[in-house]
Amino acid sequence: MPVNLPAVNAETLNPIEGIRLGWTEAGIKKTNRKDLLVIEVAPGSSVSGVFTQNRFCAAPVKLCQKHLASGNQIKALVINTGNANAGTGEQGMKDAIVTCQAVAETMNIEMEAVLPFSTGVILEHLPMNKLLPAIPKAVSNLATDHWAQAAEAIMTTDIAPKAYSSQIDLAGAKVKVTGISKGAGMIHPNMATMLGYLATDAAIEQSFLDEITKEIADLSFNCISVDGDTSTNDSFIVMATGQSGAEKITSRESNGFKALFDELVKASQFLAQAIVRDGEGATKFITVNVKGAKSVKEAKTIGFSIGKSPLVKTAMFASDPNLGRVLAAIGYASRECESLEDLDTNALELYFGDVMVAEKGGRAESYLEEQGQAIMDQAEIEMTVVLNRGEAQTTIWTCDFSYDYVKINAEYRT
Amino acid sequence: MPVNLPAVNAETLNPIEGIRLGWTEAGIKKTNRKDLLVIEVAPGSSVSGVFTQNRFCAAPVKLCQKHLASGNQIKALVINTGNANAGTGEQGMKDAIVTCQAVAETMNIEMEAVLPFSTGVILEHLPMNKLLPAIPKAVSNLATDHWAQAAEAIMTTDIAPKAYSSQIDLAGAKVKVTGISKGAGMIHPNMATMLGYLATDAAIEQSFLDEITKEIADLSFNCISVDGDTSTNDSFIVMATGQSGAEKITSRESNGFKALFDELVKASQFLAQAIVRDGEGATKFITVNVKGAKSVKEAKTIGFSIGKSPLVKTAMFASDPNLGRVLAAIGYASRECESLEDLDTNALELYFGDVMVAEKGGRAESYLEEQGQAIMDQAEIEMTVVLNRGEAQTTIWTCDFSYDYVKINAEYRT
Repeated sequence: MPVNLPAVNAETLNPIEGIRLGWTEAGIKKTNRKDLLVIEVAPGSSVSGVFTQNRFCAAPVKLCQKHLASGNQIKALVINTGNANAGTGEQGMKDAIVTCQAVAETMNIEMEAVLPFSTGVILEHLPMNKLLPAIPKAVSNLATDHWAQAAEAIMTTDIAPKAYSSQIDLAGAKVKVTGISKGAGMIHPNMATMLGYLATDAAIEQSFLDEITKEIADLSFNCISVDGDTSTNDSFIVMATGQSGAEKITSRESNGFKALFDELVKASQFLAQAIVRDGEGATKFITVNVKGAKSVKEAKTIGFSIGKSPLVKTAMFASDPNLGRVLAAIGYASRECESLEDLDTNALELYFGDVMVAEKGGRAESYLEEQGQAIMDQAEIEMTVVLNRGEAQTTIWTCDFSYDYVKINAEYRT
Repeated sequence: MPVNLPAVNAETLNPIEGIRLGWTEAGIKKTNRKDLLVIEVAPGSSVSGVFTQNRFCAAPVKLCQKHLASGNQIKALVINTGNANAGTGEQGMKDAIVTCQAVAETMNIEMEAVLPFSTGVILEHLPMNKLLPAIPKAVSNLATDHWAQAAEAIMTTDIAPKAYSSQIDLAGAKVKVTGISKGAGMIHPNMATMLGYLATDAAIEQSFLDEITKEIADLSFNCISVDGDTSTNDSFIVMATGQSGAEKITSRESNGFKALFDELVKASQFLAQAIVRDGEGATKFITVNVKGAKSVKEAKTIGFSIGKSPLVKTAMFASDPNLGRVLAAIGYASRECESLEDLDTNALELYFGDVMVAEKGGRAESYLEEQGQAIMDQAEIEMTVVLNRGEAQTTIWTCDFSYDYVKINAEYRT
C-alpha cells in the first residue's frame, strides 16, 4: 500500500474554470479500466510543459514539444495508458500524429492544438484500432468535475490515484489550483518517469509560464527517484486558464506572483511525493536533505546517490539502520560529479532524523544503535547530510526497495 | 546458486613459488568460519594494487596505498572478512596500523611491508580483541597449497569461493598464474566492490607491474556491476614473485610480455566474471557489448546504464524479453556522459543474442517475440548495442535482480 498517501476525494477537487476532462475505457492493454483521457483547455489559456531528457523519448513527447514550440494555442491534451508509444520508430510518430488528428476532428480544432501523451510498455506499437474509436467517447464525456476519474485514467502500476487541489487568495481574487500525477516505476529525473498535469484558473502570460514551469519541475518532480530509471515518456504540463478574474501575472514583480508560484510548487511537490509514496513496492517514504554543498549539483548528486542505492533501499525495507551503506553512497557520488572528488569525509556529518550518526569520518561517539532503530521503525524516514563545504542545499524524496518492486517489474507484461 | 561457476578444485590450483597462504577462524562476525587470511610474499617479488575510488574508502585501503607508495618491499598481506573497517574515523586507522604491526611482529618484518584489507559491515569498529590473537594462528598455518582455503577465507555474502589457475609457456620457461576473488554485493566500478588477489611466479619489474595492473583491472574488474554500488573497500592486488626462472619483464617489448599480459587479463576476467556469476541473488549471467561508440567512456556508460537498471535486471530475472527497458536505459545514459546528448537513436541497433531487436528508433520488423523468449530462457544472456557513430567498444558483465538480492541485503546484519 502507498505510504501515507491520502485517498483522493472527488468532492474536494476544485474544478478549474476553462478545463474539462473526459475519460473512457479503450481496452488498450486491459479491459474494464479507464485508460484514455482527453483534457479540453479553453481558448485564452497558457500551457507549458517540460519533458524527459531520455534520448529514446517517445513519439508523443517529440510531438508535444513540436506543438508547444509552434506557438499555437493548445486546446486539448490526449493521454493513453497501457502503451508508451516509445521505441516505435517512424510508425510511432505516425500513430501519434493520427491520434492528434482524430482528437482535432472530433473537437473541431487544429491538429497542432493537441498535445499527445502515452505511458505503458515500450517497444510495442499503439493499438490504433482500439484507441481511435474510443476518442469520441472520451470527448463526449468531457466535464469540469472529472479530476478524480482523470487521476485514475492515467495510472499504470500505480496502486492509488494522485490528486491535489487548493484555493488561494490572490490580490483579492480567489484562484484555484488542481493537479493529478501518476508514477510508479521507471522514476528518476530528469524528468522523473511520470505524467503530471497541473491547472489553475489564474492568468499567467505564456512566455512567463514557460519560464517558471521548469523551475517548478526542478523543485518537485526533479527531486524524486523510485528506481533510478529515467523513462521515455515523462511529461509535466502546467495550464493556466485565466478565468478566475485575477490580474494576469507576467513577471516576478506581478501582484500575487510569489503566492501563486509557492502554491504551484506546493501542489507539484505533493504530486511528486505522491508518486514516491506509491512507488513500486514502497513501504517507506524517505526524505534526504543535503546541506552545505558547494553547488546544487553536488547536493543533488549526493542525494540521488543515496536515494537510488539498492543497498540503502533494501536496508530501509528491512528497517535495518545499516547506515554504513549511506556513507558508501556519499563516498561514490564523485562518480557522477567531478567537484566531489575532493570531498572531505572527515568534515561531513550524517543525521538520521535528529540523531547524529557520523562525524569525523566515522561513527559519532554519542550514536546508539537503538536510536537508529527507533527512527527506522517509522514509515517516514528523514536523513540529513551536512557537507560543511558551501551554502547550497537540496532535498530529494525516495522510497525503499522491497520484494514487491521485483515482483511488480518481473510480472509487468504478464 | 551461482550461474555456471565451476566449483573450486584445490588440486588444480597451482601453488606459486614465493607465495604462502595461512588462514584461521578469528570469529570476527560469525564463529566457525574462515575469516582471517595472511599471504606471505617472498623477498624480490613485485606487488601492485588498484583500489576503490570511493571517497569514504576504508582505513586499510588508505594504509595499503601509503605502504605501496613508500617503495618498501611488500612481504605480507592480511585480510579479514566480517568487518570493513570503513566509516570508522581515526580509530579505524589506528586499528589498521595495529593490525599491520601485529603481522609484522609475528613475521619479523617491517610494519610498512604489510598490506591490510578488510571487508564486511561498514560503520562498526574492528573487533581487535578477536583479530589480534588470531594473527599468529594464521601465520603458523602458512603453506603454498592453501589457495582454495584462502578463497573461502575472504568470502562475505558469496555463496561459492572463486579461484583461477593456469600455467603458460613463457619463452621456454613454465610460468604459473593463480588468483582468488570475492564479491558479492556493493559491486560497481571503479572499482567493483570486491577483493582480488592474483599471483604469478613470472618476474615483472615493479614500476612496469604498477603500470599494467591498472590496465588489467580496466579490462576485468572495472567491467562488472552487480548493483551499481561502489564499495569502500575494493582492492585488486597483483604479485609477481619471479621464481619461475623466466626472464624478467620490464616493458611491452620484453620477451613474453604479450603472452603473460593476456594470461593475467584472462585470469582477472575469470575472477571478475565469477563475482557476477555469484552476484547477490543472481540467476542469470548477462554480457552487454557496446560497439561503434565515439569513445570507451560512451560505450562503458551505456553498458553500465543497461547493466545497473533495476527495470532491465528484474525483466531478466523474470525471463521476460521486455527489451523496451533496454532502449530506455540507452536513452538516459546521457545523464552520465555529456557526449551522448546527441546520440541518434534512429542510427543504433540492438541485438539480443544474434537476433536484431531494434533499429531505426523502433522494433526491427523481422523481430519475433518468440526469438527473444528463446534467448531469455537461457542462464547466459548476451546483448549487443551498435551505436554506429565511432570505433570504440567495450563489454560489461552483470547479473539479474531477484527476490534473493532484496532478501540477502535486507537480512545482511541479522
